[in-house]
Amino acid sequence: MIHRAEFIRAFRGRRVLITGGLGFIGSNLARLLVRLGAKVTILDSLIPEYGGNRRNVAGLERKLDINLSDVRDRHSLPAFVRGQDFLFNLAGQTSHMDSMADPETDLEINCRAQLSILEACRRHNPGIRVVFASTRQIYGRPDYLPVDEQHPLRPVDVNGINKLAGEEYHLLYSQVHGIRSTVLRLTNTIGPRMRVKDARQTFVGVWIRQLLEDRPFEVWGGEQLRDFTYVDDAVEALLLAAARPAAEGRVFNLGGPPPVTLRQLAELLVAVNGSGKFVMKRFPAARKKIDIGDFHADYGLITSTLGWRPRTDLRTALRRTLVFFRKEKAHYV
Amino acid sequence: MIHRAEFIRAFRGRRVLITGGLGFIGSNLARLLVRLGAKVTILDSLIPEYGGNRRNVAGLERKLDINLSDVRDRHSLPAFVRGQDFLFNLAGQTSHMDSMADPETDLEINCRAQLSILEACRRHNPGIRVVFASTRQIYGRPDYLPVDEQHPLRPVDVNGINKLAGEEYHLLYSQVHGIRSTVLRLTNTIGPRMRVKDARQTFVGVWIRQLLEDRPFEVWGGEQLRDFTYVDDAVEALLLAAARPAAEGRVFNLGGPPPVTLRQLAELLVAVNGSGKFVMKRFPAARKKIDIGDFHADYGLITSTLGWRPRTDLRTALRRTLVFFRKEKAHYV
Repeated sequence: MIHRAEFIRAFRGRRVLITGGLGFIGSNLARLLVRLGAKVTILDSLIPEYGGNRRNVAGLERKLDINLSDVRDRHSLPAFVRGQDFLFNLAGQTSHMDSMADPETDLEINCRAQLSILEACRRHNPGIRVVFASTRQIYGRPDYLPVDEQHPLRPVDVNGINKLAGEEYHLLYSQVHGIRSTVLRLTNTIGPRMRVKDARQTFVGVWIRQLLEDRPFEVWGGEQLRDFTYVDDAVEALLLAAARPAAEGRVFNLGGPPPVTLRQLAELLVAVNGSGKFVMKRFPAARKKIDIGDFHADYGLITSTLGWRPRTDLRTALRRTLVFFRKEKAHYV
Repeated sequence: MIHRAEFIRAFRGRRVLITGGLGFIGSNLARLLVRLGAKVTILDSLIPEYGGNRRNVAGLERKLDINLSDVRDRHSLPAFVRGQDFLFNLAGQTSHMDSMADPETDLEINCRAQLSILEACRRHNPGIRVVFASTRQIYGRPDYLPVDEQHPLRPVDVNGINKLAGEEYHLLYSQVHGIRSTVLRLTNTIGPRMRVKDARQTFVGVWIRQLLEDRPFEVWGGEQLRDFTYVDDAVEALLLAAARPAAEGRVFNLGGPPPVTLRQLAELLVAVNGSGKFVMKRFPAARKKIDIGDFHADYGLITSTLGWRPRTDLRTALRRTLVFFRKEKAHYV
């Protein structure tokens, strides 16, 4: 690990709260923080449609303080934030389609609960250091590529609007109330422990499931450009954002290796797997309305400010992901 | 009235719902719509700290369908929107300071309830025509003046973040679900029936109250530039936005006569009143943190698209406001 010494200095013996800590990115983060010697508390509601899975922290149950709790249930939040040195605020509803079908649930989680968390920090632990996981979805359909942090924010679905509000609350509480926060705008993140049951977290998840079940997976459209961050790289960015004072009150894009079309990604996935098939499908109409077209992020700002860059090429990312799920499939489907 | 014939064609015999219809702008709009022959339903919760006041519709009680109801109480919303031709969605929490002290209430009203209203429209009346009252607060501290609709959106308080989300929901529901909506970004609006009890709606309100009570009013800072829309002009914009198909799915700034500094406004107010005093005060620290500095809006887009412009000069606006409150003071303080 490239920043190992720095991360041990920053996190060993420190108290860290992770909302959504049983989820994909949260659990990978929790596992690394435990190895670094941090005292990790996890808050996760294990909603079946979301990313949480107890298997994600298998073997570490005794080294983590795991709490079944939901960020919408505000009464326990003061007890969670009190005494923590760091908060990685990752709990969220991630499905764009679900946000259109049930917008109020998306609002409660991605918007209202975020304000409750920050209010709990303001009242009970204003010295806490916060990192918030936002999303490239808030940019909407790009005016130009790659998309940098100056790009206009024009979300095209309810999820994007609520994540934008969640992000703005964090920046406001940083500026007005001194709750030091950093916002990372994540693009598609892939890797071990991602949700593969369905496409609610990312379409790559359901591709992998179908590949491992020897069924052809569906590629919708196919020509859209996308970028992908390997989860270990995303975790490194989260830790850098928390450890470096230069990140306070700032917003950074994450990104990945050079972007590919969905068709290229599908072909690479089949090649790395050694077998498999996919079928090209037209975009469903309901989905088309909220699609953002081509996207890839300019991550130059976090490179120049924090020295972060994606270190894992796409082939390696897919290979490691497949290796993990071949072994672990039974726990994830 | 300049668009009288057009407005009669558009609104006579039509069913119109006004949320916040007992408030400052809502009641002025309701009064005009009744004169135009519309069937007006008002939804207002008369929260003491907000703008609603039964006196605002004095004399028209029998020509309006007035309902004590709150936009946060979602169960009655389907019954309200069903069968309406137009919705003027004006209910809101307007105090910037209150939004910082009690952010969750601001969120419930300006954000969550807006989504509930739009969901009610989607499910029960997708053909309704909606006009939403947004605010210049969503721009935050201007990069340049006058501020046009292309200016970055960087709200500096919780109220601005929530109003931005409310605005985005309206545009999204217009684009994805076909709920034809127009967003107007209002600047300071003044006129008869404004809240004068305190500064929760606008500081001009409390200035007028103190002037009429022969007490010196306080001018904080004094050099900030502001623009002011007279309420009759704002009402004209709301009606144009609802009546003209060219406004569907669009966002427009309102504006006013040439901007003035707060000190100039105070001097003009005293001059128009014929007597009175004010004292200059330094900006309170808590307020300073969320102040936006100079602001005035570029309203060129609504002028070119809908033919709207502010018709009432500032002196006339202040004179009419003072005349109203001299007579009506007892009902408003």
